[in-house]
Amino acid sequence: MLKDEILKILINNRSSSEKQNNKYIGKAPGTSCCNKLEVGQYKAQDCDFDVSESDKIEFTKGNYISGAAICSKLGVSRTTVCRMVKKLKDEGYNIESSTKKGYRIIENTVCQSDMLNKAELEHEFIKAGLYKQNDFEHEGEKYIQKSEFKSLKIFYTDEIDSTNTWAKKLAEESGIKTIVCISASQTKGYGRHGNTWVSPHGQGIYLSIVLHPEICTDKLPVITLAAALAAAEAIRECSGVNALIKWPNDIVFEGKKLGGILTEMAADMDGVRYVVCGIGINVNNDTFKDGNLEYAVSLFNITKKKYSRKKLICDITNKFLKYSDAVFKSGNLQPIKEKYKSLLVNIGKTVRISEKKGEFEALSEGINDEGCLIVLKNNNERVCIVSGDVSVRGIYGYV
Amino acid sequence: MLKDEILKILINNRSSSEKQNNKYIGKAPGTSCCNKLEVGQYKAQDCDFDVSESDKIEFTKGNYISGAAICSKLGVSRTTVCRMVKKLKDEGYNIESSTKKGYRIIENTVCQSDMLNKAELEHEFIKAGLYKQNDFEHEGEKYIQKSEFKSLKIFYTDEIDSTNTWAKKLAEESGIKTIVCISASQTKGYGRHGNTWVSPHGQGIYLSIVLHPEICTDKLPVITLAAALAAAEAIRECSGVNALIKWPNDIVFEGKKLGGILTEMAADMDGVRYVVCGIGINVNNDTFKDGNLEYAVSLFNITKKKYSRKKLICDITNKFLKYSDAVFKSGNLQPIKEKYKSLLVNIGKTVRISEKKGEFEALSEGINDEGCLIVLKNNNERVCIVSGDVSVRGIYGYV
Repeated sequence: MLKDEILKILINNRSSSEKQNNKYIGKAPGTSCCNKLEVGQYKAQDCDFDVSESDKIEFTKGNYISGAAICSKLGVSRTTVCRMVKKLKDEGYNIESSTKKGYRIIENTVCQSDMLNKAELEHEFIKAGLYKQNDFEHEGEKYIQKSEFKSLKIFYTDEIDSTNTWAKKLAEESGIKTIVCISASQTKGYGRHGNTWVSPHGQGIYLSIVLHPEICTDKLPVITLAAALAAAEAIRECSGVNALIKWPNDIVFEGKKLGGILTEMAADMDGVRYVVCGIGINVNNDTFKDGNLEYAVSLFNITKKKYSRKKLICDITNKFLKYSDAVFKSGNLQPIKEKYKSLLVNIGKTVRISEKKGEFEALSEGINDEGCLIVLKNNNERVCIVSGDVSVRGIYGYV
Repeated sequence: MLKDEILKILINNRSSSEKQNNKYIGKAPGTSCCNKLEVGQYKAQDCDFDVSESDKIEFTKGNYISGAAICSKLGVSRTTVCRMVKKLKDEGYNIESSTKKGYRIIENTVCQSDMLNKAELEHEFIKAGLYKQNDFEHEGEKYIQKSEFKSLKIFYTDEIDSTNTWAKKLAEESGIKTIVCISASQTKGYGRHGNTWVSPHGQGIYLSIVLHPEICTDKLPVITLAAALAAAEAIRECSGVNALIKWPNDIVFEGKKLGGILTEMAADMDGVRYVVCGIGINVNNDTFKDGNLEYAVSLFNITKKKYSRKKLICDITNKFLKYSDAVFKSGNLQPIKEKYKSLLVNIGKTVRISEKKGEFEALSEGINDEGCLIVLKNNNERVCIVSGDVSVRGIYGYV
């Protein structure tokens, strides 16, 4: 779409302007904050985008791109460019037009920095080295990767029933190995046991990632744990919030749920065909209106700040791809076990385990290489809990 | 559709006529030949439908149903009934019309007895006690079962990309627990490793069955083995052909492939969500034109007789539901292991096992409770082969 092409050009120009002014919002391209950190050394990174007054002045010194340059690049008339710029303004972009200099995007409000669309996401993923522009051609429903560079493909929509359902459909039909599905809202978002995942427009992260690992069907728990670690770390680094993991798949803060993971897979007799990892995070939610949400909390509830979803989506994806690759190669949780354990909220706590045949309380001691929770029962028997069998809760509440 | 409703009435009447004349083609309603047979006692049943000349005379004594009765039952005019009967004749039905007596279907050719459509399949499944007419209501894509009677739902089409793909879609969307998908042809039929399954119109069986068992993801091999046993037994009983099983999923006759099973599943962290068992059988195929089919063979190639696909579909489904239920309850292959072993062609043979890391030859000794093939290597080491890892072939050919 022409509007998207113009947006891409403006975003690219915004980025070069950001770099020139040395006031880059977020990380510099190519750097990865998680590489610099050891387990336990988590700290807030300067990557939320509350821009101070002095920043704003610096920020608006950036370059313009001339209308003529856009016309020439896209082969369209000035009038068309004008019309598309107006559309982008209607969508919420603050675009400055100067007769002499041309156009530029200015981000001086939180809302503008949290603009979520395909162009913004692609820009973010390109900066992180995860995505290459125009790397896929498609013939009908099938996509063909053009380069040797093994990039992922981003699918974005404003509304979908569920990103996991969408991702499964794309996994069946598209032929793409690594798929990232993002929606601004979900009408039928779901979590474990078919529970509803409340997914209001523009507030949370609704992200599903498809991988095609060559693994056995019993490795599913390990993938879930890799995703939980990726999400918890990215949240900690981006917001400074003390996000922890409730085994196996929830991201929690002080006993409330910040996010969750739902991993699904398709398999046949020869092993896993593909895995879909769904990641839902409560980011800028103000209140939780629907559903049984006494335990829900958002980053905004905790810090009273709003965060860039595209940045967090990109960081989570980046970490998840790295961690899942490591566990696929080793065949178990070993490469990320210590990191996961360092964020595991259950350790040393008494938990209530609900199985089909009944409930029991036990002391949670840690996890093993297969991603099972190791607990010590009251009779001093030590058992490994597999996620499929049980529900784990603290004895005084959700965690 | 009105035409289908009229066909249902005519088929029901054909059935009562068949019963009156005591010349029922196939088994009597409610009986199940597999119950009467012990392992190793397989014999040809009188259920193919080569009708002799003397049979034909008996057969055409059946009752007619009057045009008036059809009009009254369906609330349509005589002209409409006439028009629909003509359509059914165009589709291949031999329908006798008598001004005084009314209409009746006569089956005196092989082609007419192998008519495959929804009404014929439903009639066959009702006789076997597997299906109850009008047991489902649907609201959009969701179906609701009306009765306590846990029947399955049959989906039939003339052409589909793949019955497994269709079955997976229905499993995701329909809400039905037991789904049986049948197509007269497949345009993108597939087997293991994505190999093409040649699926010409009206010749083979292309059947996919969806189940929702409460099992762990590692039980997939056992389901495949249950389906292979069901298919091999039904073929033996229906045709008298010495169909055997090549571990884990092929039905073979004298070193050639009669049929195959492809089991797929969808799972999440809490276990299997559903299983799709695809069953392809070469029934009335004359030649195999496409693909690499040096090892393919059909029942027609072997016996020079043609068989009723609907009857075989119903028998396979009936046995598969029984066997899969037994293995789900026990959690392993134990309930059907001896039956499976009695038809296993690999036993006592030297097989070539192809793994990722290389090939080796070994003596195939049997299967264990998990459905793994037990082989004795040349160094006297005994190992269990899991289906996902390997390809097994005889050292002098396909079996």
